[in-house]
Amino acid sequence: MANTLTQLEQTILNRRGADPSMSYVASLFARGRPKIAEKLGEEAVETVIASLSGDRGALVGEAADLLFHLCVLLADADITVADVLAELDRREGISGIAEKAARNPQA
Amino acid sequence: MANTLTQLEQTILNRRGADPSMSYVASLFARGRPKIAEKLGEEAVETVIASLSGDRGALVGEAADLLFHLCVLLADADITVADVLAELDRREGISGIAEKAARNPQA
Amino acid sequence: MANTLTQLEQTILNRRGADPSMSYVASLFARGRPKIAEKLGEEAVETVIASLSGDRGALVGEAADLLFHLCVLLADADITVADVLAELDRREGISGIAEKAARNPQA
Amino acid sequence: MANTLTQLEQTILNRRGADPSMSYVASLFARGRPKIAEKLGEEAVETVIASLSGDRGALVGEAADLLFHLCVLLADADITVADVLAELDRREGISGIAEKAARNPQA
Repeated sequence: MANTLTQLEQTILNRRGADPSMSYVASLFARGRPKIAEKLGEEAVETVIASLSGDRGALVGEAADLLFHLCVLLADADITVADVLAELDRREGISGIAEKAARNPQA
Repeated sequence: MANTLTQLEQTILNRRGADPSMSYVASLFARGRPKIAEKLGEEAVETVIASLSGDRGALVGEAADLLFHLCVLLADADITVADVLAELDRREGISGIAEKAARNPQA
Repeated sequence: MANTLTQLEQTILNRRGADPSMSYVASLFARGRPKIAEKLGEEAVETVIASLSGDRGALVGEAADLLFHLCVLLADADITVADVLAELDRREGISGIAEKAARNPQA
Repeated sequence: MANTLTQLEQTILNRRGADPSMSYVASLFARGRPKIAEKLGEEAVETVIASLSGDRGALVGEAADLLFHLCVLLADADITVADVLAELDRREGISGIAEKAARNPQA
């Protein structure tokens, strides 16, 4: 079940130790950080393209792939989804344009 | 508060109608789909690079940026986080390597 | 022969009309613009990762892939390599930092 | 002058040692490999989006940016444009679909 991102994270962690020949998640961890990062980058490119295609179903599918591979990348770095949500929460205190300017002075 | 992705989504929807000169979220919606997609792509590139840098804090920050812009892109396409989590859930029924093969025959 | 980018372009144009089942180039044109753009994006991600790996041979290979798919994308849009080099030439008249600022006011 | 990619490369190498506050190229080298890679990735995303927009002029401009930052990235790794063109040349001996399959068995 993945009703929340935390449940998706739990599923990924549960499969981490599986046989790489039986589990896609385990095979990703076995291939290592650069390969996981590559998959994340590819899914982001596919999300960008789907978002411009007008095909709603394609965008749902690519966003799911992107979220999934982001959770694998975070797990590989021992970062929890809670860590990332806490960072977003922290930023909420600095709202709107000012907040973005504060974190990306050059953007 | 963004304890869950759904709360982040709610914050984004609440700001959608704000004055673009006062809210970064509103300014993104005002600039339109290609610009939002571009930001998503850029944050993905930064996430890839941070994940290879060994700087854990940088990766938390970039993952937060990526998640945030993904939620804006989805909102712009009237797709909910629940839609994407439901798609991930649906795939859970088809587990491991087989599942990945089924959705990306060429990968 | 691809001693220059223009020769690579010529090779690509020569294969454009080939049987897609016999030529990778022809198969890319047959799949259309979004697929060619997706391949370009993927090769860029792989170039980024190779550039951070310290593996010089990997970077040469990924840069070759990126250049190749860029030429296919340009050909699909009826843009010549000469058009792109002319644009770079035009910018040479506006040198250094000033030139970059002029073309990307927000960067 | 950038009538060829090799001339663009020469311009970049000439500016490499300039004052980073006076030359965009010198400032890129000063910021280092991850920043140059990030710029390459961003320009690739913008090229993907421009290629789907139907705006020919935008695609020419983004392709120019991408080519320029690729040359900077290669120069930073002491790889010449000639090295990359030689790699493409080498592949020419293995034509069409077979060649692609040989270099990317999983693609």
